[in-house]
Amino acid sequence: MNSQFEIIGKRIPQLDSMSKVTGTAAYIADMALPGMLHAKFLRSPYAHARVVRIDTGKAERLPGVKLVLTPDDVISKTNPIGPTAPKQQYALHREVKYVGDEVAAVAAVDEETAEEALALIEVEYELLPPVLDPEEAMAPGAPQLHGETRNIREPQKVRIGNVDDGFKESEHVFKGRFSTPKQAHACMDTHGCLSSYDSVTGKLTHWTPAQSILYTRMAMAEALNMPLNKVRIVAPPAIGGGFGSKARTFAYDIAAGLMSKMLGRPVKMVLSREEEFMATRSRHPYIVEEELGLKEDGTIVALRQRAIMDVGGYSDTAPLVAQCGQGMVPGPYKIPNIWVDTYPVYTNKSISGSFRGFGNPQVTFARESLLDIAAQKMGIDPLELRLKNTIKPGELPYTTSTGLIVRSCGMEECLHRVAEAIGWKEKRKSCTGIGLACVINWGGVKIRAVNAEFASAEVEVAPDGSLLVRTGNSDIGQGLYTVLAQIAAEELGIPLEKVTIIGADSDSTPPDFGCFGSKSAITTGSAVKMAAAEAKQKLFKVAGNMLEVDPGDLEARAGKIYVRDMSRSVTIKEVAGAAYFSAVGGAAGPVFGRGVWSSPSVPQNEDGYGNYCNAYAFAATAVEVEVDPETGRVKITKFVSADDVGRALNLNIVEGQIHGAAAMGIGLGMIEESIAYNDHSGNVRNPSFLEYRVPTALDLPDIQPVLIEAIDPEIPLGNKGAGETALVGAAPAIANAIFDAIGVRITDLPITPAKILRALKEKRDDS
Amino acid sequence: MNSQFEIIGKRIPQLDSMSKVTGTAAYIADMALPGMLHAKFLRSPYAHARVVRIDTGKAERLPGVKLVLTPDDVISKTNPIGPTAPKQQYALHREVKYVGDEVAAVAAVDEETAEEALALIEVEYELLPPVLDPEEAMAPGAPQLHGETRNIREPQKVRIGNVDDGFKESEHVFKGRFSTPKQAHACMDTHGCLSSYDSVTGKLTHWTPAQSILYTRMAMAEALNMPLNKVRIVAPPAIGGGFGSKARTFAYDIAAGLMSKMLGRPVKMVLSREEEFMATRSRHPYIVEEELGLKEDGTIVALRQRAIMDVGGYSDTAPLVAQCGQGMVPGPYKIPNIWVDTYPVYTNKSISGSFRGFGNPQVTFARESLLDIAAQKMGIDPLELRLKNTIKPGELPYTTSTGLIVRSCGMEECLHRVAEAIGWKEKRKSCTGIGLACVINWGGVKIRAVNAEFASAEVEVAPDGSLLVRTGNSDIGQGLYTVLAQIAAEELGIPLEKVTIIGADSDSTPPDFGCFGSKSAITTGSAVKMAAAEAKQKLFKVAGNMLEVDPGDLEARAGKIYVRDMSRSVTIKEVAGAAYFSAVGGAAGPVFGRGVWSSPSVPQNEDGYGNYCNAYAFAATAVEVEVDPETGRVKITKFVSADDVGRALNLNIVEGQIHGAAAMGIGLGMIEESIAYNDHSGNVRNPSFLEYRVPTALDLPDIQPVLIEAIDPEIPLGNKGAGETALVGAAPAIANAIFDAIGVRITDLPITPAKILRALKEKRDDS
Repeated sequence: MNSQFEIIGKRIPQLDSMSKVTGTAAYIADMALPGMLHAKFLRSPYAHARVVRIDTGKAERLPGVKLVLTPDDVISKTNPIGPTAPKQQYALHREVKYVGDEVAAVAAVDEETAEEALALIEVEYELLPPVLDPEEAMAPGAPQLHGETRNIREPQKVRIGNVDDGFKESEHVFKGRFSTPKQAHACMDTHGCLSSYDSVTGKLTHWTPAQSILYTRMAMAEALNMPLNKVRIVAPPAIGGGFGSKARTFAYDIAAGLMSKMLGRPVKMVLSREEEFMATRSRHPYIVEEELGLKEDGTIVALRQRAIMDVGGYSDTAPLVAQCGQGMVPGPYKIPNIWVDTYPVYTNKSISGSFRGFGNPQVTFARESLLDIAAQKMGIDPLELRLKNTIKPGELPYTTSTGLIVRSCGMEECLHRVAEAIGWKEKRKSCTGIGLACVINWGGVKIRAVNAEFASAEVEVAPDGSLLVRTGNSDIGQGLYTVLAQIAAEELGIPLEKVTIIGADSDSTPPDFGCFGSKSAITTGSAVKMAAAEAKQKLFKVAGNMLEVDPGDLEARAGKIYVRDMSRSVTIKEVAGAAYFSAVGGAAGPVFGRGVWSSPSVPQNEDGYGNYCNAYAFAATAVEVEVDPETGRVKITKFVSADDVGRALNLNIVEGQIHGAAAMGIGLGMIEESIAYNDHSGNVRNPSFLEYRVPTALDLPDIQPVLIEAIDPEIPLGNKGAGETALVGAAPAIANAIFDAIGVRITDLPITPAKILRALKEKRDDS
Repeated sequence: MNSQFEIIGKRIPQLDSMSKVTGTAAYIADMALPGMLHAKFLRSPYAHARVVRIDTGKAERLPGVKLVLTPDDVISKTNPIGPTAPKQQYALHREVKYVGDEVAAVAAVDEETAEEALALIEVEYELLPPVLDPEEAMAPGAPQLHGETRNIREPQKVRIGNVDDGFKESEHVFKGRFSTPKQAHACMDTHGCLSSYDSVTGKLTHWTPAQSILYTRMAMAEALNMPLNKVRIVAPPAIGGGFGSKARTFAYDIAAGLMSKMLGRPVKMVLSREEEFMATRSRHPYIVEEELGLKEDGTIVALRQRAIMDVGGYSDTAPLVAQCGQGMVPGPYKIPNIWVDTYPVYTNKSISGSFRGFGNPQVTFARESLLDIAAQKMGIDPLELRLKNTIKPGELPYTTSTGLIVRSCGMEECLHRVAEAIGWKEKRKSCTGIGLACVINWGGVKIRAVNAEFASAEVEVAPDGSLLVRTGNSDIGQGLYTVLAQIAAEELGIPLEKVTIIGADSDSTPPDFGCFGSKSAITTGSAVKMAAAEAKQKLFKVAGNMLEVDPGDLEARAGKIYVRDMSRSVTIKEVAGAAYFSAVGGAAGPVFGRGVWSSPSVPQNEDGYGNYCNAYAFAATAVEVEVDPETGRVKITKFVSADDVGRALNLNIVEGQIHGAAAMGIGLGMIEESIAYNDHSGNVRNPSFLEYRVPTALDLPDIQPVLIEAIDPEIPLGNKGAGETALVGAAPAIANAIFDAIGVRITDLPITPAKILRALKEKRDDS
C-alpha cells in the first residue's frame, strides 16, 4: 500500500515525542515573561443571578494587587464576541448564567495574592430562578436567559424530499428517544493564556493554545477594538490536546488581553482543573426523538428527527454544531426523505461547544440504535440491513439526497472487515453480545456563518537543501506537524530530518483556518503539498540549467534531482545553493513555495442541502461484550474499528487517532458520567478527575484498528480525515451489542451498570 | 518634489522613536530567558603569543561555574569561519594575535561568577614578537602572523587603460602620501548575543544584533556543523547602531552557541565597552600613496595608487573592503588610466572590518586632498577643477573607465549648491578657509566572493485591510522599518499606521542579504514595493469583481480602491475581507504578495572593472573653518553637504543620515584619535569613551544638508543610498579648508591641533 511514497503512509513517530516524554516541551502553563502578572477570575456561586453591587476596594488595597476588573469595566472597554450574531460573550457578565460564570478578575504579582484578593471582593447578587433541564427551559413560564422565545437560539432544520410521503410509503416505522451526556474534553493541558501589550507600540502579543490562531486573532481584535496588524496571536510550543475545547476565544483571553492593555504588563491566566470542568466547554447533550420508515425489504425511505441541544448559558457554537450534526443524520445511507428540527436551548449550565464529533456522535447514536431496533423487529440481520442501505463503490460519485458528493466510499468494505474481525456470523448465534454501527464523517466543514475555509502554507528551501515549512495551523498533540513534515519531505524527495516546521504565529506564518473537524491533514496538508510542489518546480528550473535538460524531465528522490532516466543528477543542496547564490536558472534568489488550499465545499442551505465538507470518511465499529446480569457490569471483550480515512498519511498517527477516538467513544458510551449539576443550585457535582471518570488504559479493551483507504480523487493526497470516525460509532455499537447480549436496550448515554440493572428489572417485570 | 507620492518623501518620524525615548525598546542586553547562563571571555594580555598550557581546574570548581571552554574544545568541536577562504576565525585561539584575542570562555550562573572564574584560569603563554605597524609587517624579517608572504592577505589591484601612457600624456603630476586612522564604530549598543539550544529537538535559536541574519545563520551553521533548518537567527527588537560593526559573526556568537549546545541551557554574552574597543572591529587604517596626472587644462588623465591596509590579527573583510574601496578611487571623475595596488597587511592589533564607507573615506581623502594640491599648484579654482572632470547629466547613461554604469548623476548640481551655500566665490578670497570634496558612493555592492545579492519581502493583507510586512533585514537604528512601512503604505494607498513591520527572524521572515553599503532602502525597499504591488494586483482582481470593472481601471488611494474616474469605490477593508472570506474574485484565500529584488550588478573582475553596485550616489561637501594659529584649534563655522541620494524616501531619515554621517566624518577628520596601541606591548591605550573621544553635539557645527534627487531610472523607487555619502567627503573638505585658511596641508588623519601646530612650525622653518 502507498508504494509510490517513500515517507507518506509509513509508521513515523511524532517529531515532538522526545520533547514530550522528556518534559522539555513548553505548554502555556510553562510560559513566563519578565514582569508578568498572574490573573484569576471570581466566578459566580449561583446558577442564575444579577450582580447588583461589586465592591472591589478591599481587594484593590491588598499589596501586590495591580488591577481588579468588574463587568462594568469590561462592558465599557470591550465588544462582545461569539461565532454567530447576536454576540453574547463578554469576559465578565452583569447577569451570570451558570455556576462558574465570570464576575470579576484580579491581576496580581503572584497567583496566591490574586486568589487572596478574590476572597476580598464583595458582590451582592439578586438571585434569579435557574433552569437546568432543556425541556423545562422550553416550557411556558420557564426562566428566560436571553429573551429569545422559549430559550431557543436559532432553530435549525433539514427538509429533504417529502417525509410525509416517505412515511406513507413505509411498511415499517420505528421510533425512539435517545439522549447523550455533557461529556468533558478532559485535555491534560488546562486552558490559559499569556498576554503582553506594548503600550508604546500599541501591539498585543497573545500566547494561547488555540486550535485556530486566525479566529482568535479576529476575536481578540474585535473584543479589544484593535486593528489586526496590532494583534499577534502565537500558539505555545506545545498544546496538550484540543478535541474542540480550544477552538474558541475565551473569557480568559479577553480578560488577560484587556488587563495587559490597561496595565502595560504581561498578564498570565491559567485555569485550574476545577475551572476546566465548571467553566470551559463540553459536548452538547442531545435529546433525540427519531422515527425511521422502511420498506419490507429493509430499504430506508424516511427519517424524521426532533433534537434538543442543551446549549448552556450562552450560545457559542450551538447553531453550527446543529447544522453540521444534521448533515450526518442520514449516516452513510441512501435516505430520500428527511425532516429534522434541532432546537438549541439555553440552560443555566456551563457552555456547550465544539467537541470532536461536533453533533455527529449524538445523531449517530440515535440512528444506529434505531436501525438495530428495526432490524431486530423486522427479523433482518443488522449487518445486512446496513449493507443494503449504504452507498456502494459502484455508485460513485454519489450525490446524497442532502447534497453530499461522495467521491470515494469504503463503507461496505469497513462493514465486511469488522464483521469478519468480530466473527459476526458465528457470534450472532452465541451467548456473547455483538453489535455494530456505521459512521459517515466530514473531512472539514464549511458553515453558512463564515462561508470560507482555507489553509495556506509556505516552504523555504535553505541554501544547504534543508527546509522550513511555515504553517498557521496548530499542532494540538495529534501530530499534525509530523504529517506536514512528511508531506514536504515526500514532495521534495528529502529526508524527514531536513524539514523543520515553523508553527502558528500570526505575525509570521501564513493564515490558516485552524484545526477542526478532521480537516488539518486535508487543508493544511494540501497547502503544504502545493507549496512544496511550487518550490520543487523552482529547483527543477535551476537544476535543468545545471544539467542542461528540460525541467520537465527531472525528478526529486533521496536528496537528489535526477534526469528521469537516472543517468545524471545533482544534489538538492547543490541546486538550492546555486539558486541562492548565483544566477543559474535566472536571477539569484531564495527558493520559496506557497500553497493555498481553499475548500471547494459549499455550506448547507436553509433546508440542510449542500456538499459542505471537503471529503467524507466512513467507519464501521463492531463490539463484543460480556454483561454480568448480577452487577450490570459490561466488559468489552473485542473492539474493532474499520475506518475508511482515505490515504493514511502516517500509520502511527492514524492508528493513534483511532485508538484515542475509540477510547473517547467508549467513555461517552459507558464510562464518563455527564458533567453533573445539582438540580437545585446548579453546582457542578463532579469537577475533578476523581469524580468525573475518563477511561484509563485499565478500562479499555484491546482496540483493533482496520484501515481502509478509499482514496479521494479530488484531495491532493487522497486523505479524508481520521480524527473523529472511530469515536462516533462506539456508543451505538456498544448499545447494540448489549441488546444482543441481554435483550435490553439503553437509549440514554452513558450505559452504566445501574441503568442496565434497572432495564433488566423492567424487562423481568414486563415479562 | 515627489508630488506623486502621499507618504514617500515626507518628513515622518521613525516608528520606533517612542519606544526608544521611553526606554521600552529591548536591546540584546535587555533580553533574558529562564535558566539563562552568563558567559565571559578570558582575553589575551599579549599582542602575540602561543598558549602553551591552560589549567581550568580551579575555575571549574568555583560554585556557579557550568563550563570552561578552551581553544582545544573549540577547535575540536567547531569549524573556523571567515568571509573569504582560508577561514581563520575560531571562537578561541591557540595562538593569539592581539591584546584582547579570545583564549578561554566561562559560562556561569551570573556575570560576577563568570568574571571571578576568569581570574582562576591559569594560562601559560609563549611570547612571540609582535608587529604593530603594517609597513614594518611587510618588511623582511618581520614576525609572521599567518604564514602568508610579507603578512599580506590577498593583494587587490585595478588595471584600467594604460597608466604609463597616461602619465606620459600628463603635463602636470602630483603626488602625496595620506593616512587614515583606526576609527571605532562606537555604537551605543555593545555587541552581544543570547543563544538557546534545545537538546531534544537539536535546534539552536540565537538572538544577535546582526546586520545580516542571513550571513550569521550560514556562519553559525558552518561553525557548529549544523544544517540550516536547525539554526534560527533572530535580531533583537532594537539594535543600537551598526555602521558595519555588526556585519559579521563574532567569537561570542560561536562561543555562546557552542556552550549552549554543550550545556542545553541558554547562554548570554554581552561585551563591555572596553571589550568593544579592544576586540570587536574598527575601520581599516590606510596608508595611501597616490599620484595624479593632469593636462594643462585640468583634465585628469592618470591615477596611480598604492595602498596599505592595516588588517589587524585576522583577515575578516579586508579583501572585500580593498575591492570595494578601489572601485571608488577615481571618484566621480572621468579618469581613463588607473593603476591601483592594495595590500591588506596583518598586524598584532584588533581586527579591522566593515565600517560605514567601506574603503571609500580612505581613498577619497587621498584623492580629494591631492586634487586640491593640484588645483593650488596649477592655479585652477578647486571647484572648477572638479566641475571640469566630473560626469555631466548630459552624458548619461555614462559608463566609467572602470565599468560603473551611471544612470543618474547630480554631482554637478551638488557642487553648485554647496558652492553657493558656502559662498565659494566670495570666501575663497577672504581670510576664512573654505574647502570642498566630491564623493561617489555605492548603493550596495556585489562582491566576487559571493556574487549574489538579494532581498525578499512579504506583504500580507489582513481581512480588516491592515498590513503585515515581513522582512529578513535588520533595522539597526537607521529607520529602515519606517521606510519599508512607508513604501508598503504608499503602494497600497493606506495610512502608515495600518502597517506593521515584522522584523528579522530566519524562521519566519523572507531571506535578505542584510544591511550594508547604503543598500537596504534599495534592495529591501524594492522587494517591499514589489510585494505590495503583487498584493495590490490581487486586491484589484477582487475589487474588479465587486465593482464590475476591469482591474486595470482601478487605483488605490486613501484606504479605498477607486474606479479610475473616481465615480465608485470600495474600501480596502471590504475588499480584503471579501478576498479572505468569500469566493469573490476566485477561490477564497489570504491576500499575499512577495517581492524578490535580485541585484543586477556584477562583481568587479580581477582588474577592478565592473558595474558592481545597484546605483551610484554623489555628494559634495563644503566646509568653512577658522583656525587659531596659536593653539592649532580648528573651528568649523559652516558645513554644507549636498547629497544626490536619488529619491529621498523620508526627509527626516535622509537628513538624519546626513547629519550622522557628517558627524562621523568630522570625527574621522579631526576629533577621533585612532584606536591607539602601545608600541611595545600592543595594549590599547584608549578603550573607553573618556579616552577615545567621539564627537558630541558640542563639538559639531550646524550641518546643512542639501538634498539633490537625481532619480535612478532602474531602481523601482529611484533611490540610490543615503547612508554613507556625507561621511566620505568630510575629512578631505576639512583638510582642504584648513589649507585654504593657513596654507598648511595635513595628510594624516585626524587633523589635530598638535599636527597643525607642528605643520605651521615646519612651514615657518621652511620659509
